[in-house]
Amino acid sequence: MTELRKDPIIDNWVIISTERGRRPLDYKIKIEEKKKDSCVFCEGNEGKTPPEIFTFRKKGTRENSPGWKVRVVTNKYPALKMEEREAALEKAGMFWKMDGLGVHEVIIETPHHHKDFDNLSIGNIVLILKTYRQRYLDLSKDKRIKYILIFKNYGIDGGASLEHPHSQLIGTPIIPQRIKEELKGAKEYFDLNGRCIFCDYIKQEIKSKDRLIKETEKYVAISPFAARFPFEIWILPKYHNACYEEIGDNDILSLARVMKEILSDIKKKLNNPPYNFIIHTAPSKEFFTREWLNLDKKYHWHIEIIPRLTKIAGFEWGTGFYINTTSPEEAARILR
Amino acid sequence: MTELRKDPIIDNWVIISTERGRRPLDYKIKIEEKKKDSCVFCEGNEGKTPPEIFTFRKKGTRENSPGWKVRVVTNKYPALKMEEREAALEKAGMFWKMDGLGVHEVIIETPHHHKDFDNLSIGNIVLILKTYRQRYLDLSKDKRIKYILIFKNYGIDGGASLEHPHSQLIGTPIIPQRIKEELKGAKEYFDLNGRCIFCDYIKQEIKSKDRLIKETEKYVAISPFAARFPFEIWILPKYHNACYEEIGDNDILSLARVMKEILSDIKKKLNNPPYNFIIHTAPSKEFFTREWLNLDKKYHWHIEIIPRLTKIAGFEWGTGFYINTTSPEEAARILR
Repeated sequence: MTELRKDPIIDNWVIISTERGRRPLDYKIKIEEKKKDSCVFCEGNEGKTPPEIFTFRKKGTRENSPGWKVRVVTNKYPALKMEEREAALEKAGMFWKMDGLGVHEVIIETPHHHKDFDNLSIGNIVLILKTYRQRYLDLSKDKRIKYILIFKNYGIDGGASLEHPHSQLIGTPIIPQRIKEELKGAKEYFDLNGRCIFCDYIKQEIKSKDRLIKETEKYVAISPFAARFPFEIWILPKYHNACYEEIGDNDILSLARVMKEILSDIKKKLNNPPYNFIIHTAPSKEFFTREWLNLDKKYHWHIEIIPRLTKIAGFEWGTGFYINTTSPEEAARILR
Repeated sequence: MTELRKDPIIDNWVIISTERGRRPLDYKIKIEEKKKDSCVFCEGNEGKTPPEIFTFRKKGTRENSPGWKVRVVTNKYPALKMEEREAALEKAGMFWKMDGLGVHEVIIETPHHHKDFDNLSIGNIVLILKTYRQRYLDLSKDKRIKYILIFKNYGIDGGASLEHPHSQLIGTPIIPQRIKEELKGAKEYFDLNGRCIFCDYIKQEIKSKDRLIKETEKYVAISPFAARFPFEIWILPKYHNACYEEIGDNDILSLARVMKEILSDIKKKLNNPPYNFIIHTAPSKEFFTREWLNLDKKYHWHIEIIPRLTKIAGFEWGTGFYINTTSPEEAARILR
């Protein structure tokens, strides 16, 4: 069963997805797979995953067989699944729910089990970033999908249940709460000032340098002023654009370099912590005029990286109130 | 340094608290203290904590010495600290910040190192719940504190850095985001329907029984309809009241019984998971008329319990979008 449910008190939706059918004791932490022959994402084991949706692969190699460089498949235990209909909103007493229509894909980043962003070639990272772009472009044609979210969980404490380098894509019939709040904040700032809040933010951070980690011709990496987590990092394009999927090939090359440097630095300087990164981009184009006029001028895509260094999250989970024990200025100084 | 910072894009405040002055490598998980003689919260080690603020203790015993039953001290590494002034709001460029004025206390729940809610006597739990009430009553006199939050982190993965049973209190100069959203939702429902949303919620859950875990004369325990976490549980008073601190002695006794039963069941049925519980109560009284008229009619205090069974939180942390792999109906069936 997969269902979206709205909290009756707070304006927030939750995915109830019991595909994996876990019992209470199944929640204990699984030991990560280390052996190559048993890893379903390794080259040669293509038959052990659902069929591929998209790949970059060597010329002359066949679908669902070795020879790929980046490979996209449906998640075997999808949080959301697509069916041949519209998502129906339903009311039960004071509750609202919706069919769990959507997509959940896995982007296998490389055939190599032990390579990751820090030791992959720039060429391979470029292909990963191009794959992200392609999936955004393909899926944004489906009007039932309102938001496409690409993210990576690294390490068991980062939420990765398989060790083989991969990222994930979830396409949802609603806009996730934090993205909605960002869109709202960006819209309000634009309506008041006539400028993109992220563009102003970037200018201020480049000028002050206090929280600046890296600056290249096209990108900046900063630790945000109100960082919720120690060593939280945002990578933002200095040029204005609301949509990740509009990124050009040259910009992808620059981004690949920044991503590799930042993720290598995290590994080196923070002792290989688990981490997550999430691409924050505008909702699908249809949303631009229907719900918010000129969203392309108001929003600014970026990547948020959260190293998972702290366990003090229960209080935070319950209240949305974060205590960060490393100031972003200190984090930037260490990562610079 | 302790400072509150507002996210420039999203309407959310974060506590930047570097009291502990942790370096990157200090974030690795600490082994919990098991030895009684080195535990600062154990009886006999009263001199190793800041002086006590409040206690229930045996007649004839002296302050800061053995003989106490429940003991409240200032947190040695406080996230917020009180000083002799008002919290000043300050603007720097596009950023807002505020002095980190507030309080951070530890409620040591028992002198016994290895007892917890599941194996403490009802009498001891009553004293803990009375201590919570007393701290709310005392601190709500300070007009600089807008919200008082009492919570418990159990287990190292629940965020507890010391094993000895304890809960915590944080008094803040702002209302935490999730509480603010709850207040807003409750207000909107009341303004539309003229009734408390929680009262209606409780009635519906008692009637449907699908997500009902326990019902006593005074309280219900339910797994909420849009539970964000597997086996999330809310304990709510069936009688309407916005403020935990107005709880009567008889109601405390009933609540102690429910808390003990529910937390014992979690331990038994879910294999002793780490957990957090958080008391959700109305902001300090002054807020009632100043910002929201008749808040006492609109809000309804309750306790939210989150067993920490899953690690898949990076995506959730980044987006506020939760995937729950156990339906609340299934969770209630197992816990019933």
